[in-house]
Amino acid sequence: MANQFTLSQRAQALTSSAIREILKVTERPEVISFAGGLPSPATFPIARMREATDKVFDEAPQAALQYGPTEGYTPLREWIAARHSKGGVTIRPSQVLITTGSQQGLDLLGKVLIDEGSKVLVETPSYLGALQAYSLFRPAFSAMASDEQGLIVESLTGEQLQGARFMYCLPNFQNPTGRRLPLERRQALVKKAREAGVPIVEDDPYGELSYEGEQLPSLLSMDPDNVIYMGSFSKVLAPGLRLGYLIAPEALHGKLVQAKQAADLHTPSFSQRIVYEALQGDFLDRHIPEIRKLYANQCELMLSALDRYFPAEAKWNRPAGGMFIWVTLPEGIDTGELLAKAIEQNVAFVPGAPFFATEPQKNTLRLSFVTVPAEKIEQGMKILGALVTAEVAAKAAATA
Amino acid sequence: MANQFTLSQRAQALTSSAIREILKVTERPEVISFAGGLPSPATFPIARMREATDKVFDEAPQAALQYGPTEGYTPLREWIAARHSKGGVTIRPSQVLITTGSQQGLDLLGKVLIDEGSKVLVETPSYLGALQAYSLFRPAFSAMASDEQGLIVESLTGEQLQGARFMYCLPNFQNPTGRRLPLERRQALVKKAREAGVPIVEDDPYGELSYEGEQLPSLLSMDPDNVIYMGSFSKVLAPGLRLGYLIAPEALHGKLVQAKQAADLHTPSFSQRIVYEALQGDFLDRHIPEIRKLYANQCELMLSALDRYFPAEAKWNRPAGGMFIWVTLPEGIDTGELLAKAIEQNVAFVPGAPFFATEPQKNTLRLSFVTVPAEKIEQGMKILGALVTAEVAAKAAATA
Repeated sequence: MANQFTLSQRAQALTSSAIREILKVTERPEVISFAGGLPSPATFPIARMREATDKVFDEAPQAALQYGPTEGYTPLREWIAARHSKGGVTIRPSQVLITTGSQQGLDLLGKVLIDEGSKVLVETPSYLGALQAYSLFRPAFSAMASDEQGLIVESLTGEQLQGARFMYCLPNFQNPTGRRLPLERRQALVKKAREAGVPIVEDDPYGELSYEGEQLPSLLSMDPDNVIYMGSFSKVLAPGLRLGYLIAPEALHGKLVQAKQAADLHTPSFSQRIVYEALQGDFLDRHIPEIRKLYANQCELMLSALDRYFPAEAKWNRPAGGMFIWVTLPEGIDTGELLAKAIEQNVAFVPGAPFFATEPQKNTLRLSFVTVPAEKIEQGMKILGALVTAEVAAKAAATA
Repeated sequence: MANQFTLSQRAQALTSSAIREILKVTERPEVISFAGGLPSPATFPIARMREATDKVFDEAPQAALQYGPTEGYTPLREWIAARHSKGGVTIRPSQVLITTGSQQGLDLLGKVLIDEGSKVLVETPSYLGALQAYSLFRPAFSAMASDEQGLIVESLTGEQLQGARFMYCLPNFQNPTGRRLPLERRQALVKKAREAGVPIVEDDPYGELSYEGEQLPSLLSMDPDNVIYMGSFSKVLAPGLRLGYLIAPEALHGKLVQAKQAADLHTPSFSQRIVYEALQGDFLDRHIPEIRKLYANQCELMLSALDRYFPAEAKWNRPAGGMFIWVTLPEGIDTGELLAKAIEQNVAFVPGAPFFATEPQKNTLRLSFVTVPAEKIEQGMKILGALVTAEVAAKAAATA
């Protein structure tokens, strides 16, 4: 019998994710993996989650196990709205939609805002999971010029902005680069987007993970009528619950709710109630500083190893928060090929190319410093540094 | 500022769900609602779930709170494959994909199999949530003729089958009608679909809820190469966990996994592990008979009330399982209008029209007998019966 499945055009265009294939390899326990975007399990507040779960079973077991409203558990929506109501801005609970992980927010936005060929503006590079989610709806990506501080606002021309359905931004400790958009650029960006009538999608899973100083204001707080904000509990509590949220202007919220209903009816009542209980008594304000401390320390260790083991020709940033460092090697070095060699020596990272919506820069790579414990960072970076040094030398010899 | 959100064509076509609006009304505690498709919370195995949750926290808290594989938790996939390997058929764990509720399976199938204008065959009537999920991908529905036993297989012509991406079937205690497809029709259907090269999507959330006698074999067991099976733990454990699964031929499985990754990365690790623990020791084989007994009793009460309170002109089925009874009133009576009157008297049901992909039959309605306790069934049905009797009499007087 011939293959009887006629795939949709969007499914035909799906290719297996590079990251996904890599993560499979890194499941081998002997591999030191700087590839994963997984939070350190040492940061999971297990006792707190257990206490919260007990409370849910004691007080509302039937409601926690029953179907719930598509918008999400009302007290949790109220908590989120209150947390984002600051700096003179009021977010209403009616703007909040609980999603099954922040990833689902990307899918819902793609469904509701992208037609085939719609222009979608993305950073250079951008989050791979977003590119994949949006791609299913077959947009035309337009890459916005960026530097080590993020989006270069003045590079955005009227022509590039014209007709864009939205611009997708990760202002805080961006995945994959770890960079943070400075305050002045945020202000300029919000103004320019509003004037051009282009909504901003602000994806902010890492915003709370700033190692020092004050957090910068969210784009949402600067223009709540033109910004759709995506938040997540994955990096501040635990990702295995798959709990994220969208904050959207009411004009869009209703459509997102309808798309959510078709997607999975609602996010599990059980985990929503557990997280709500875990959040009580300002728990995050005590817990997040512990995560920051651990990650800042591991970031420092990795930066120190980069300084010692990587050749002068390699460039990288010094993140002020988040989970990632972005490394640029001399042009002509393909980090995809480098990865194959690294894995032979039981070290993994993510090649940078898939993070570019257009014109991949094959000489880039992403390092995560949070999942691997301190002693393994030193060990793995030494191996990787030696490999990179050899590659750079070989390249120099070949072109000499 | 003008509305800056340009919606996708699929989002523009989204209309608010009738059921959704109705469910909002029925949240008022004074309403006796036969509208909801919610399982009875009395069937939720709370002690068992709590025991399972404790085990997960004792034994693998970090893994349960961490990201997991997109395909799902391997032991749970193995359990599902084993449970569906019967009657000489072997289902491999590699065919199983855990979904965030069975509803997500509908979304993933739509994404992977439907292009704009693709022909999709559905029953008359069919599950509203499926029609909504598929509609986002803008198919051309073709309604397959059905009677009180379900799909009329011989009505399917070569022309109707030609070019269909799949046929969507609910053979067991269908939502909304409660009907079950007889064995001979199952055999004929599977054969006809295979010969026509049209895959079958078998949606089976209610299959375990047969009140008496043997369960009929699944379409999956009859032709695993041409059937995509959707299962759920919502009706046998609890819906608030949002845990379902797809079983698909490997040719399609990989694409579904990729679509799932873009949709929400994976279903919560936490709830997958809890459910896996809860299932151990053949728990379902002890638990499901209790659900059946409760639902069979409530079904009997509602049928008895229908016999006593509804006029002779109304027709309904006597389900052998599941959660629903389907009522057909004389032509010319609009159950949407009837609902408005019923709600004034604090009784709710779901009008049948939205369940039809084409040519809605406005004189039909769905009654759920599982959520409302026994004494309320009697009370609510008496009110509804009086209303229907008055409507039928008024109609007869008007046409006399």
